[in-house]
This record gives sequence, C-alpha cells and structure tokens, in this order.
Amino acid sequence: MKVLVTGFEPFGGEKINPTERIAKDLDGIKIGDAQVFGRVLPVVFGKAKEVLEKTLEEIKPDIAIHVGLAPGRSAISIERIAVNAIDARIPDNEGKKIEDEPIVPGAPTAYFSTLPIKKIMKKLHERGIPAYISNSAGLYLCNYVMYLSLHHSATKGYPKMSGFIHVPYIPEQIIDKIGKGQVPPSMCYEMELEAVKVAIEVALEELL
Amino acid sequence: MKVLVTGFEPFGGEKINPTERIAKDLDGIKIGDAQVFGRVLPVVFGKAKEVLEKTLEEIKPDIAIHVGLAPGRSAISIERIAVNAIDARIPDNEGKKIEDEPIVPGAPTAYFSTLPIKKIMKKLHERGIPAYISNSAGLYLCNYVMYLSLHHSATKGYPKMSGFIHVPYIPEQIIDKIGKGQVPPSMCYEMELEAVKVAIEVALEELL
Amino acid sequence: MKVLVTGFEPFGGEKINPTERIAKDLDGIKIGDAQVFGRVLPVVFGKAKEVLEKTLEEIKPDIAIHVGLAPGRSAISIERIAVNAIDARIPDNEGKKIEDEPIVPGAPTAYFSTLPIKKIMKKLHERGIPAYISNSAGLYLCNYVMYLSLHHSATKGYPKMSGFIHVPYIPEQIIDKIGKGQVPPSMCYEMELEAVKVAIEVALEELL
Amino acid sequence: MKVLVTGFEPFGGEKINPTERIAKDLDGIKIGDAQVFGRVLPVVFGKAKEVLEKTLEEIKPDIAIHVGLAPGRSAISIERIAVNAIDARIPDNEGKKIEDEPIVPGAPTAYFSTLPIKKIMKKLHERGIPAYISNSAGLYLCNYVMYLSLHHSATKGYPKMSGFIHVPYIPEQIIDKIGKGQVPPSMCYEMELEAVKVAIEVALEELL
Repeated sequence: MKVLVTGFEPFGGEKINPTERIAKDLDGIKIGDAQVFGRVLPVVFGKAKEVLEKTLEEIKPDIAIHVGLAPGRSAISIERIAVNAIDARIPDNEGKKIEDEPIVPGAPTAYFSTLPIKKIMKKLHERGIPAYISNSAGLYLCNYVMYLSLHHSATKGYPKMSGFIHVPYIPEQIIDKIGKGQVPPSMCYEMELEAVKVAIEVALEELL
Repeated sequence: MKVLVTGFEPFGGEKINPTERIAKDLDGIKIGDAQVFGRVLPVVFGKAKEVLEKTLEEIKPDIAIHVGLAPGRSAISIERIAVNAIDARIPDNEGKKIEDEPIVPGAPTAYFSTLPIKKIMKKLHERGIPAYISNSAGLYLCNYVMYLSLHHSATKGYPKMSGFIHVPYIPEQIIDKIGKGQVPPSMCYEMELEAVKVAIEVALEELL
Repeated sequence: MKVLVTGFEPFGGEKINPTERIAKDLDGIKIGDAQVFGRVLPVVFGKAKEVLEKTLEEIKPDIAIHVGLAPGRSAISIERIAVNAIDARIPDNEGKKIEDEPIVPGAPTAYFSTLPIKKIMKKLHERGIPAYISNSAGLYLCNYVMYLSLHHSATKGYPKMSGFIHVPYIPEQIIDKIGKGQVPPSMCYEMELEAVKVAIEVALEELL
Repeated sequence: MKVLVTGFEPFGGEKINPTERIAKDLDGIKIGDAQVFGRVLPVVFGKAKEVLEKTLEEIKPDIAIHVGLAPGRSAISIERIAVNAIDARIPDNEGKKIEDEPIVPGAPTAYFSTLPIKKIMKKLHERGIPAYISNSAGLYLCNYVMYLSLHHSATKGYPKMSGFIHVPYIPEQIIDKIGKGQVPPSMCYEMELEAVKVAIEVALEELL
C-alpha cells in the first residue's frame, strides 16, 4: 500500500505553512504496512497541477490525502467535495489571479471526496481532536488540487481514494497578527500531524 | 518566594475545566527558588471568596496568578482590570444568579492587575504562545476572584502582585460541541500549562 | 417573463423566517414587465420537493430565485453551487434527520447556479448592500431546494435561470439570543427585501 | 432639560463614521421637552478632551450620551464602565500612538456609566433593536471620552448622567471589505439612529 500526503509552500504573506512540515515529517514513514510519501506543492496554478500529476504518476499511490492551511478555521476540517472552478480572492505565489474559470473544462461540476470522511471525523473525535466535515474547500489552490486528484482517480483509475484535509493556523502563526487586532484560532502542530496520521490509518482500514 | 496559582472547578455544563488541571499540575513545583502552590476554587459566589481568602491567609503568597477558562477565546488573554461588579449571565454552580451587585460595597470601582501584563505577553510571544491583553474579565467568578485578590493586596498588603489569566478551551472540550454546529477555538493543554509557568517566571523576575 | 421567488417557513426553533415575509411581500408585484410569484416552502424533506415541483410546473417561471435564512451570516450570500447530498445537522420540521443521502440518486454531483451571481453581487454593492458569493449552501433544505430547481432546469428545460440567495437574521430575531450570550449578526428586513428585488432585476437584464 | 450627543469623525482608514451622522442628525431636535445638542469630536487624544470639555461647559447638559463606532460588533453595545487608561493599538488621527498611560493621572481607576444601562437595553429589545451591555469600551478614543465625561460629572457635578454607546458598522462600510475576505457585521443606519433616540428617552425618564 502506498499513501501520498501533499502539503503546500507558504502563501498569502505567511512565513510558514504547517502543511509543508506535515508532508515532510510524514515522508518516508510507514503506517502499518503502508509506505507514506510526503510532497510539497507550489501555490501556483498550473505548476501545482504539473507537480501533482507527475507525483501521482511517479508514485501511483493507493491513497492520496492532500492537506492545506485554512486561515481562520478552528479545527481540522475534512472536505466533502471539490468543485470544478477557480475563483481566487488573492493572486497565487506567481501573481496570477484567476477568477471564474473551470479547472478542467468540460469535466464534471464536482467530485465528492472518496475518503471515508465521516469515519475519519469519528476517529479524530475519539482521539480528542476537534474535526468537522467542511462543505467547501474554497476555490483557490486547495480545491484545485483536490479536484485534480479526484479527476485523476476518475479518469486514470488511481488513487483509489483521494481527498482533502484543512488544518488551522499553528500557534506561532498568530503572534504577528495579534498586534493588528486579530486573534484567529490555532491548533498545536503536533495535533495537526497526528490528525493526518489518523486519517491515513482510517483510510487504510477502509481500503483493506 | 511563594506563588499561588488558582484554577476553577468545571462550570456551565462543562465536564472538565483545564484550569483545575493547571492548578493541580503546578501545585508543589518550584520555579527558580519560588515555591508554587496550586488551589482549585469553587464556581460559587461567596464560597469562592471564603476559599480564596483562607488560602491567601494560609499561604501569604508574594504572587497570585488566578486562571480561568474563557469559552470562545482563541488565545491566552491576560486581564488588565478587575471591576467591582457581579452581573452573571448564568447561575453559579449552586444555582445563584447574581446581577448588578458590587463585589465589595463601597470599595473602589476597579483595580488594575499588578502583574507585569505587557512583559508576560511579550515573553509568551517569544515562546510562540498566542496571547493578548484583555480589557474585561467578564463579571462572573473570574472577575470576582481577580477583584477580591487585588482588594486583598490593597487592604492587607499581600500578595504584592496579583492578576488573572484566561485560557481557551482545550481541544477535547470541543468534540461535543461540533455536533451542535459550534466549533469554538481551543489551545493544547500543554501550551496553556506552559503559558502559566511563563507568567510566573516573568512575575518573579519583576519582583526580584 | 415570470419570476418565482420562494422562501421558507420558520425552522430550527425560530418563531419567524424573514424569507417567508420576502416571498409574501414579492408575490404579485411586477418588476419591469416581469410578473413575480412568491411561494413559501415547507422545511420538510420530500414535501418541499413536492411543493417546489408542483409550483414550477404550475407557474413555469423563466427565473427562479430561492431564498433562505443563514443563521450567523452577516451579509447577503449568493450561492454558487448546489450539491447532490443531504446531511442534516438538525431534523426537518417533521422530525426527519437525513444524513449522507443523495437528493437525486444517480444525478450529477452538483449544479452551478445559473443566475448571474457576480453581476448580482456587483449591483448589490452599488446599492450599498453587503453581499458575497458563497461556495456552500449547506446540506439542509436550502441546498436541497436549490439542487432540485437546477435539476428541473437541466431535465425539463425551465426555469432558464435558477439559483439561491441566503439572507442573515433580521434584528428582531437576535433579541432572544442575547440573554444566552450570543449576538449573531443581522440585517434590516427592508435591505433583505431590496436585495432580492435587485437580484430579480439583474437576472431579468441578463435574460433579455 | 439638555442632552448632549457626541459622535466621532472617521478613523482607522474608514471614509465615514455613522456616529458623526447620528450626532448631526440629532443636533437641534427635541425629545419630549428636552433639547438635544449633537457634536462631533476629533479622533485625536488631547484635542478630543479640549472639544469635549469646552462643549460640556458651553452646553452644561443634564445628560451626555457619547456614541462611537465599534468595528466587528454586531449589535448596539451599551458600555458599563470607563477605565482610566489609554492603550491604543492604532495611532489617532494625528499619528499619535499612546500606550499604557492614564487618562487623568491620580484619578479613580474607573467610573461606571451613570446611564440606566439595563433599562436602555430593555427598551431597545422592546423596539426589536439588538443590544447588549459591554464590559469594555476599549482603550482608545471612545473609552477616553467616556472616562473624561464621567470624570467631569464626578468633579464638576454635571452632566448628571453620562455614558457611552457603541454602534456597529453600517452596511455601506462593509462593501470595500468583502473583496479582502472580511464580512464584518453591520446594522442599518436608521436603526442605529433610533437606538440613540431610545437611549435618550430612557435616560430622560430616569432623570425626571
């Protein structure tokens, strides 16, 4: 069994992105018999697609769990659906601001995640990790990668399971915001890392 | 040097109160040469006063740091001021709902915390712990204990330093709320415990 | 030209639903040459479908704008997409709590709104009415009605244009929540009514 | 009977301040037999004090209701207490950023509002206007003016009644924020104006 976990480089003026650390920390570990591959995607439309598809073809994972940072959210949010649309509120990391364009022209309007989202949520709760099902991954790079991964599954037959998990800020990212009168929620990094591991465990159980 | 840390028993339908665990975990430890005493106060008007004042007289701490849970807040909040008023939105743990009454009739309208609140915030930021200065501790048991402690300082000469720190929910407290459509922020318990230790360190430095 | 506007009866313990008043206030008015029909739908899975489909067949509107209350939102939110799923957090008004079921088995995963959502948002901004594009109508009765209406368009050829607009609480709905420590946002009823009229105007302009 | 209502000029990058309009709209009206004077204060430490004190001495009002904008709040918030401290997060309108300084050195730590705050809240609820009691007016110009006004009462014997009411953004102020991904709450201007009138009515009833 092969599991791909992707994170993203920092974006939107942030110095770090906890999902980059998650992908790197999980790269090379084993969960049960499954080998985990961690990769970091660029926050650039087009390039993220290239890197994602090359990675999928190179690794041919059974399971793909894509992870992204959701500023302002206060818990792990497991995405239910990816939508065939880009409508960016901020430019990507190469200054491109795409609005109201399909990700894959002519492809389905949306794909449901093929991860066992409710089982993952349940297991996270059992471990004391706040998590909920989100009905929108936004229309920026996170939804873009989720849609492309699910489109790959639908058109190329793998990964058998694919989906997306958003994580909140980690505490160190809040410090520079407090002076501006903002105190967004955060979650300790260790808990975020643990949450992705739990998601992998549950997905593996589902697939075996 | 003697440091008193107080927390509270659970209230408002919560099964746990992280500040109870903080007080118990810090009871008996030493920080530098300072001896730390941890005590848990009842969430009952009147009784909290009795236990607080007995504890202050018994221990005669140099520093008193009172800790409370602030549902909905997303970071450590260091209180600036205690107000001579009770205006409870919910009953206390013995069903008493006091509204618009002074804590100490005829005493000053308010007391500023005598903790070095800005220095504590700065040190917490250096440690990567989100924290801000709060200008209201509410008008329930937290403000009540803060006011009484500062009133004790003002009228009995000790503790030399007294103040209040609010902590957010810890993650495990969020799980039962998610089903009701609420996802309040939380902070890992270890970070909350660390924050109170840091506050003690800074207060001790200030006093020496 | 015929325009159908639907609202809902009260739900979730609320005494009123501003969208019921909107539908009734708009029923029978004319906007330009267009005749507006206002109908109120039950907050009951199954029944809402029956009433909606009967109404669509009876009126055969060119445009259908379905309106719903979104507790907690602070502006008009114009929905981008309807998803073929029901996942109710609360029971409907007849006690049915449906989870993880498709609305129309075998039908597309989702439909984009066919209203000119960005033009509507722009016009609302010009009129000083706060509005944004929402990427999730939830998975309760609002998304259910939006999906069924768009499915009707896709399979029966009308309405030519269909979509969904969420409105915040109106101020009078906040009063009973303040005592419970909640102060959700609201918007004056007159502004909500105006917003739906503007949406009709823009949709008509788009269609002519 | 003479009633002074003050508002503020725009600040913090806002183009308008609804409280400026409120003060101007109420200037010169009569409520019962009471004559209302509306004045607009500069958002500048020092100058606001001069203008306030000159206005108080010129008009010698029986009642002073100071009104300010509270970005992010979702209802009318009636302030309970003014604190003898300035701790500005942003500079004032002349670039001065004062931190941790008393407003009046040596004066009391705080003053409670002398308006009948709970009666005002009750009457606002009866009129369907969302309102709550706030326990912190912040530590910027609003708290500054509230404290100085109450200090004037305490030291010069008038106004007999003084207090502060915060109002939310009005809808037109939200439009430019939506593009930045922020949708703060707002309240229609007419409702804010009505709320201040109601506060005057209740204060007058209390005083007669």
